[in-house]
Amino acid sequence: MAVIMHVDFPHKDVWGKEMASQMKELAQSINKEPGFIWKFWTESNQDEMAGGVYMFDTRENAENYLKMHSARLGEFGYSDIRGKVFEINEELSNICKAPL
Amino acid sequence: MAVIMHVDFPHKDVWGKEMASQMKELAQSINKEPGFIWKFWTESNQDEMAGGVYMFDTRENAENYLKMHSARLGEFGYSDIRGKVFEINEELSNICKAPL
Repeated sequence: MAVIMHVDFPHKDVWGKEMASQMKELAQSINKEPGFIWKFWTESNQDEMAGGVYMFDTRENAENYLKMHSARLGEFGYSDIRGKVFEINEELSNICKAPL
Repeated sequence: MAVIMHVDFPHKDVWGKEMASQMKELAQSINKEPGFIWKFWTESNQDEMAGGVYMFDTRENAENYLKMHSARLGEFGYSDIRGKVFEINEELSNICKAPL
């Protein structure tokens, strides 16, 4: 069953179109990761944070991606990366019109 | 522009269908909140956490909901509630097939 993962970390300076320009190839590569379904790219200039909300096909694939992605973010100079993987309560999510 | 919010908190004991049974009316009420678009109900028995990923129409409506919801969760006995509101990088999210 599909899972939801959210990741965030402190981030500064690059937002919006500039972020999109710098990260376009990375975004394309994420589509090829095992079990990847979709990702919202998230950013908050106000809180100086960035991250993502992902859907993966299984918890195992999400956790494998999180491990790889956290290491990659570390190489980019990021720290304090927080990632959590959750099962979806389908009945309640259906009531709340989630895009399952 | 729509925003994404994720919320999580320590949670024990009630999962899946039992959670759905207890929270059905609350889920229906969330559909009526100002600016609410959708919510994934998230739960992790493994990590003893629960929460949600939401889309709202504006940051202001998401933050108002978060304030109300955090207080309500406190009344239910929950603590250590973490909620973050993010703008969506639409260009990168489109590349990654997010349900915008």
